[in-house]
Amino acid sequence: MALIVQKFGGTSVGNTDRIKNVARRVAKYRAQGDQVVVVVSAMSGVTDGLIKLAKDIVPLPAEREMDMLLATGEQQTIALTAIALHSVGVPAVSLTGAQAGIITDGVHTKAKIQNITPKQVHQLLDAGNVVIVAGFQGQTDDGHITTLGRGGSDLTAIALAAALKADLCQIYTDVDGVYTADPRIVPTAQKLPEIAYDEMLELAGSGAKVMQLRSVEFAKKFNVVFEVRSSLNENPGTIVKEETNSMEGVVVRGVSLDKNQAKVTLFGVPDQPGKAARIFRALADAAINVDMIVQNVSHAGGAPATDLSFTVDKPDLLKASNVINTLRAEIGFKEAATDESIGKLSIVGVGMKSHSGVAAKMFDVLAQEGVNIGMISTSEIKISVVIELAKGESAMRALHKAFIG
Amino acid sequence: MALIVQKFGGTSVGNTDRIKNVARRVAKYRAQGDQVVVVVSAMSGVTDGLIKLAKDIVPLPAEREMDMLLATGEQQTIALTAIALHSVGVPAVSLTGAQAGIITDGVHTKAKIQNITPKQVHQLLDAGNVVIVAGFQGQTDDGHITTLGRGGSDLTAIALAAALKADLCQIYTDVDGVYTADPRIVPTAQKLPEIAYDEMLELAGSGAKVMQLRSVEFAKKFNVVFEVRSSLNENPGTIVKEETNSMEGVVVRGVSLDKNQAKVTLFGVPDQPGKAARIFRALADAAINVDMIVQNVSHAGGAPATDLSFTVDKPDLLKASNVINTLRAEIGFKEAATDESIGKLSIVGVGMKSHSGVAAKMFDVLAQEGVNIGMISTSEIKISVVIELAKGESAMRALHKAFIG
Repeated sequence: MALIVQKFGGTSVGNTDRIKNVARRVAKYRAQGDQVVVVVSAMSGVTDGLIKLAKDIVPLPAEREMDMLLATGEQQTIALTAIALHSVGVPAVSLTGAQAGIITDGVHTKAKIQNITPKQVHQLLDAGNVVIVAGFQGQTDDGHITTLGRGGSDLTAIALAAALKADLCQIYTDVDGVYTADPRIVPTAQKLPEIAYDEMLELAGSGAKVMQLRSVEFAKKFNVVFEVRSSLNENPGTIVKEETNSMEGVVVRGVSLDKNQAKVTLFGVPDQPGKAARIFRALADAAINVDMIVQNVSHAGGAPATDLSFTVDKPDLLKASNVINTLRAEIGFKEAATDESIGKLSIVGVGMKSHSGVAAKMFDVLAQEGVNIGMISTSEIKISVVIELAKGESAMRALHKAFIG
Repeated sequence: MALIVQKFGGTSVGNTDRIKNVARRVAKYRAQGDQVVVVVSAMSGVTDGLIKLAKDIVPLPAEREMDMLLATGEQQTIALTAIALHSVGVPAVSLTGAQAGIITDGVHTKAKIQNITPKQVHQLLDAGNVVIVAGFQGQTDDGHITTLGRGGSDLTAIALAAALKADLCQIYTDVDGVYTADPRIVPTAQKLPEIAYDEMLELAGSGAKVMQLRSVEFAKKFNVVFEVRSSLNENPGTIVKEETNSMEGVVVRGVSLDKNQAKVTLFGVPDQPGKAARIFRALADAAINVDMIVQNVSHAGGAPATDLSFTVDKPDLLKASNVINTLRAEIGFKEAATDESIGKLSIVGVGMKSHSGVAAKMFDVLAQEGVNIGMISTSEIKISVVIELAKGESAMRALHKAFIG
């Protein structure tokens, strides 16, 4: 008898028919003798509707009250899912995040899970129930309702799996699993049977939109093995786990293209200590997320100066531009330029660590495709380049063909 | 500085504009230096929408899960009301029934409040907040969410007022207060400045639809003085409280007409012990609520037999008929007849206790109007008669004129 945690997102529980489908799937696992904990999100549309009501009253509602409001979305789904399980003859009990023992810090709308005391979950499981837990929510030590922010329901599932020492955690979504590349761009992309946490993190951080980074980080930290799979079919998905020796035989696990970045370049930044710190502190203070940063050696001739480039999310570009312009006199750079027509192309694989020449091969492939490289940034298991957006997809296909097939 | 509990029903919080109106009203009381606890219902329509979702899945959903589902309605309103109070500059914190310390028994969908530990409410009030509590809900000792059933939000307000030793409890509704009669039927009906609990109970139990009986009973039991008033204007309402000596000077406080009753008569019921008990046990087992019961002395001649009449809610008449027919052989009555065209007309007043001749005057008035009396039933402070429905409204006007003006 295995203990399985299954998480279903907002689309999978988007109406009562889909909730009944979820119930049938859960019932099948339970009929095999497994104990099942189900984590559900709010029905799709419900959260947005509630946010709209609050913003009708005031543009910036208090975060504590937004948590009180939004937590009702998942609470509705757990009750309906329990009712749907009853209707197929399966005993089931729903629990809010608070009732399931999920304790968070007090940072409303983006709380962090501090610990889970799943006593009641265990008792209900042992009494023969499927236990349905509201994703995305918890409560503070002193009983205030909190929510976990984006990707919160995945996090609930993975944290519960860790606390319950579950045998398996399944994240049901609308894709079949993790692919070597986006199949809409690379028709030969293959579903990966397994992937290492670090690879999943690098892929998620470079434009592959399967899961939020924080859930994968949490799973890695607590060594929770989980499977990403589809709620629309019975295909096995992708197992995400600690890297194994055999994984290192594969140099490149996946190729990703992030079209949502924009580039800012500052020309002629005086080469003095503290200039870069000043720039990126100002951007951070404006809540602008900076991804790649590249700085090269000083130019020869005249006062030492350098060019500094970085990328930001496209919607933040205007804000970043404004921040940079207010710093112009203080920093003393010559000129700033921005470029929205870029793509960030990455190859990811734990095998890179033990294989040399990967970067050389990547640049070769891009050169043969006539793609000019604007920025380069590398980690132990990832190489990213910024290229012209228009050539992004064909370059992605070329890299996939060269490294994966 | 007074402590006031204010309750607003589903219509008063039916959309964000109305929630803002509620916030402005609360803010006004708080500006006078009062501490305010606000109890709100679900926005009108929300509860029905949730019930529909559940019944889409299965016709008879589990009651524990219905409570989990329906409790979200009030939880949404408390958050939105807190947000609306913030928007007019009033510090406010929302609490679910559980968070407000409302402990109930475990009878899901119609739980009874067992006790209230309003520690957190006091702390938040003392810190300068308006506290907004979700009506209609609580939790059991071991943390299951419960709801209180019909009229539950009124009950929450009155129970909280008792637990907090509030100076005043205001029940905001869509009428101005309690009237001597329904003003749509009796144009000369007057709003009562005050009324005794018992009078309110008898009026509520005889067709005046201001509040559920159980909330008035609870208020009487814990001696909570409350005011019924309109959320649409600033008029003072009706104060409901223990009877005073001065109240006894008024013989008839109000006249009510219940058009929702139907009459069942069993002719020739053998006059033997246990027959009546058998009949009303069978009706109770079928969850049929019986209101008036009248039995007269045995007929002369032959085996002793009597006629037995009772009234039930009109929608229950068919069910009651079926129950009666299955008992025919066992009970041995001769014939059963039903009559849907009746009205129950009542006069209510604590002054009746010390005034004689009230019944005689009532019957006189009805006789002058040419109204035939089908059944009579009396309590210490109420006289009810069953009459022909078609004459109900004119008879009501005549009684109002004779006793009140």
